[in-house]
Amino acid sequence: MSEGQERTPPRLFVDAPLGAGDEAVLSAEQGHYLRNVLRRVEGDPVILFNGRDGEWRGRIAALGKSRAAAAVETQTRKQAAEPDLWLLFAPIKRGPVDLVAEKATELGVAALVPVITRRTVVGGVNTERLRAIAMESAEQCHRLNVPVVHEARPLTQVLDAWPAGRRLLLCDETGQGRPITQVLAGLDPAAREAPWAVLIGPEGGFDPAELDAIKKRTIVTPVTLGRRLLRAETAAMAALACWQAQVGDWT
Amino acid sequence: MSEGQERTPPRLFVDAPLGAGDEAVLSAEQGHYLRNVLRRVEGDPVILFNGRDGEWRGRIAALGKSRAAAAVETQTRKQAAEPDLWLLFAPIKRGPVDLVAEKATELGVAALVPVITRRTVVGGVNTERLRAIAMESAEQCHRLNVPVVHEARPLTQVLDAWPAGRRLLLCDETGQGRPITQVLAGLDPAAREAPWAVLIGPEGGFDPAELDAIKKRTIVTPVTLGRRLLRAETAAMAALACWQAQVGDWT
Repeated sequence: MSEGQERTPPRLFVDAPLGAGDEAVLSAEQGHYLRNVLRRVEGDPVILFNGRDGEWRGRIAALGKSRAAAAVETQTRKQAAEPDLWLLFAPIKRGPVDLVAEKATELGVAALVPVITRRTVVGGVNTERLRAIAMESAEQCHRLNVPVVHEARPLTQVLDAWPAGRRLLLCDETGQGRPITQVLAGLDPAAREAPWAVLIGPEGGFDPAELDAIKKRTIVTPVTLGRRLLRAETAAMAALACWQAQVGDWT
Repeated sequence: MSEGQERTPPRLFVDAPLGAGDEAVLSAEQGHYLRNVLRRVEGDPVILFNGRDGEWRGRIAALGKSRAAAAVETQTRKQAAEPDLWLLFAPIKRGPVDLVAEKATELGVAALVPVITRRTVVGGVNTERLRAIAMESAEQCHRLNVPVVHEARPLTQVLDAWPAGRRLLLCDETGQGRPITQVLAGLDPAAREAPWAVLIGPEGGFDPAELDAIKKRTIVTPVTLGRRLLRAETAAMAALACWQAQVGDWT
């Protein structure tokens, strides 16, 4: 890190309410990070956000081994809504799934939804680890909130309990969908305003009967991401970037 | 890996010319991988490509400790051109730069061009390692060629020797550019047909004077990727995906 970057106040997500004069308790990990990694001391500036009260400037008020806290001073940004975009993904191996959590946070998803498909090979999802990764990524990318990480559930169960009005962009690796840009550019105003989700299948693809059943749901729009075989995490990042660029808040 | 995936013939990039009846010598790494990782034996099928002669089906003809080779049988795909898209990126740390090489290959770049900027912090780029990563990624994503990995050079030198007609999409993290979709959707037919490059700055951004000088070049179109602060590798993947979706071969 350059000298200039070292002096940037660290950006921290907290649970506490944020208002001028408040004291925000920091987690043990945050205290350790400030003290032992960044070598900060009491009085040093920090930036705080909690997903509700915007972004605030403050100072380290306590940095002991048993307790760390910040004094909240002035608001630097008002709370603003992030696009309402979910990512549904079949559990994949640890490295790629960590990457998905980090990058999907940077790419502005509101929720990470692990879904078990028929061909899902990887057993469980450590949602606690994904939450920690999403939080760290949100701190770094200057988001004002942290994506919600759902517990893993079977895909059919998630789709059966689907919220009314939310659309689903299905990345269909069989190449049967229309090109993603054509689909997104052709959305009518109501569809552009709707909440969305992106669904990425497991490594090796969906079971064909399962894929057919997904496509029959009226909320689903299948798209293709070209003829190269993208890994699941690459397809996720590509589809999220295209959605943000064409429908979301990059427009 | 599921049983179905295990039986898929491995896909291998070779240097040798490929034609029916030819024998293609495999590298020591490929021999080791076939023998010790995939547990294949002589006679097992493989898929071969060399970036020139299309894709061929063949069989393992030799799989000894000192020599591995494949007998080339029948062509499965004719050689086809990939989009002529370069990625210029400032060297970043090992993990992220490896990710860039792997994902940019999946996202169909023709060349990876490491460029030294004024604020480039990371010293060197191990181009041999990036070549190996790009080759493995090309094998996995069913490309018919492998991206060329250039040696690192100063950005000004690369831009001074810029090939006539190639356009450059600058990811401007200061937010001064127009939204990427607006820029790409507004290209005239000549610009859509032109060869392109994407330029991603170093962690922490370009030096302001350097950024101004880049923007003055007529080949350059600055774009913005929204208001969240993307890491360099995330910006690279997002911009490549948007370009492929709107201008490249996902259309």
